[in-house]
Amino acid sequence: MSDLSRGADWIAVDWGTSKLRAWSMTDAGETIDHVSSDSGMATLEPDEFEPALLKAVSQWLDGGGTPVIACGMVGARQGWIEAPYTAVPCPVGSAEIVTAPTANPHLNAGIIPGVCQNDPPDVMRGEETQIAGYLAGDPGFDGVLCLPGTHTKWVHVSACEIVSFRTFMTGELFGLLCGKSVLRHSVDTDEWDTDAFTGALDVTRSRPESLAAQLFRLRAEGLLRDQSKATARARLAGLLVGAELAAARSYWLGQNVALIGAPDLTSIYAGALRAQGVNPMVTDGNEMTLAGLTRVRKSRMERA
Amino acid sequence: MSDLSRGADWIAVDWGTSKLRAWSMTDAGETIDHVSSDSGMATLEPDEFEPALLKAVSQWLDGGGTPVIACGMVGARQGWIEAPYTAVPCPVGSAEIVTAPTANPHLNAGIIPGVCQNDPPDVMRGEETQIAGYLAGDPGFDGVLCLPGTHTKWVHVSACEIVSFRTFMTGELFGLLCGKSVLRHSVDTDEWDTDAFTGALDVTRSRPESLAAQLFRLRAEGLLRDQSKATARARLAGLLVGAELAAARSYWLGQNVALIGAPDLTSIYAGALRAQGVNPMVTDGNEMTLAGLTRVRKSRMERA
Repeated sequence: MSDLSRGADWIAVDWGTSKLRAWSMTDAGETIDHVSSDSGMATLEPDEFEPALLKAVSQWLDGGGTPVIACGMVGARQGWIEAPYTAVPCPVGSAEIVTAPTANPHLNAGIIPGVCQNDPPDVMRGEETQIAGYLAGDPGFDGVLCLPGTHTKWVHVSACEIVSFRTFMTGELFGLLCGKSVLRHSVDTDEWDTDAFTGALDVTRSRPESLAAQLFRLRAEGLLRDQSKATARARLAGLLVGAELAAARSYWLGQNVALIGAPDLTSIYAGALRAQGVNPMVTDGNEMTLAGLTRVRKSRMERA
Repeated sequence: MSDLSRGADWIAVDWGTSKLRAWSMTDAGETIDHVSSDSGMATLEPDEFEPALLKAVSQWLDGGGTPVIACGMVGARQGWIEAPYTAVPCPVGSAEIVTAPTANPHLNAGIIPGVCQNDPPDVMRGEETQIAGYLAGDPGFDGVLCLPGTHTKWVHVSACEIVSFRTFMTGELFGLLCGKSVLRHSVDTDEWDTDAFTGALDVTRSRPESLAAQLFRLRAEGLLRDQSKATARARLAGLLVGAELAAARSYWLGQNVALIGAPDLTSIYAGALRAQGVNPMVTDGNEMTLAGLTRVRKSRMERA
């Protein structure tokens, strides 16, 4: 952080389904200030994006058309303006950004496109920018990036290109089962049982077909054996991540793997991968987002 | 249906998590009348069960202590009074029913215990009564009963005993994914695509570990290929049922299988099983519940 009264050279925006986060930046890549709000893409109609952005960042605009670069679900069909997907294989961090329609002449907002894969069909929005951020720090990376989250992505990267990727709904399934299912009373705790996680991981990694039966067993063990909530919660996570590891095997077996995400999630995935003999690099998702937005900004400056 | 003004010889009650259903019955097994309400077990505190039951059935009580026989979640720990599980292997339809505490002297209510299995841990409440109903019509049945529902049960029955069983959360997962997940917009229809169901069934039956990735693919196909909602919904069901068939293989492969449940669900499972060369008997779940309650009533009469 530095002099907050200074105007931004440009503004970096991570605009997801549920959150809007913005940073005022210098051209040297320094962060001056940052804000966040609950004005996520899912809460806004198309004509509400510009006001929401102005509300968040107007204190940083200096009247000269400060560039804004945004990534995430803001570029979805239901977002501000659709930034059509770039299909794999594609270079990292150099897609054409799409200019959003604005009424305010001081706003110059561009949206980074997501990436799609035609076969098997898959999509990402936001992760492509984290990947660009990771490669900004390690341009020669050749291997697999795993981005755990609501929809976890496993991404094969080589020669500064996204080669292929696969999305798993593991995080969303965990959230639904913890919050809305018959298991919710059995797992209602913040505590954690590492051994239970590792044990459950092995069950579904080796026998992934048993998942749906193992899930109800968590309930039965609570009724018949007074299983603790910490054990049940860690087993639920282990069962889901184990099934994911079984399906994503080609993405981690014998591969150079790096994790990008929130520390609570990357630590779970790191533990799971270490149990398979894979020792992943771990990086912070927010830092990678900002690094990716910065890389896209620099790439535009160089081309200008 | 017959003379509604006639008092009941006994009252049959199916009291589940979300519904209370009751029938006034003659000792000959004839139904005189029936009612249903939303006073499910999950909506009631322990002291609210008797008033809820009286509200539903008081018009049938003749002042002489009409017997009531109930099955389902009413006997759970959080229900009216806990009717402890009978452990497998156990005879069908002859467990000791538990008398519920009542303030009204005209009410004489008994609750049928559920069934548990110690290894692997599993439980049922209500299905044991449908199984008793099925065996009342086919006492020599030797094979597997599949009871599709929120928590689908596969039950091995031999020599009038429940030998073993396994529960799958397939129905609950389908409901959560259709109603609460990122897929909800992709599957928001009542239409159905039979070919899509069968194709998806094969995918997870042969490669069950791919489930979490196949789920997100439903979303991606909607975005990239304009997949119809009917196709997406049928594929979602096919993926979940296919993974269940993979895990429940020992329960249907080369087995004599009968289905018990709601017609919309049993027709889906019947189609899935026929695609594996199994031709199941199909029976109605409500009819089996009433037949099972009737069998338990007769068994008590004979012992009295």
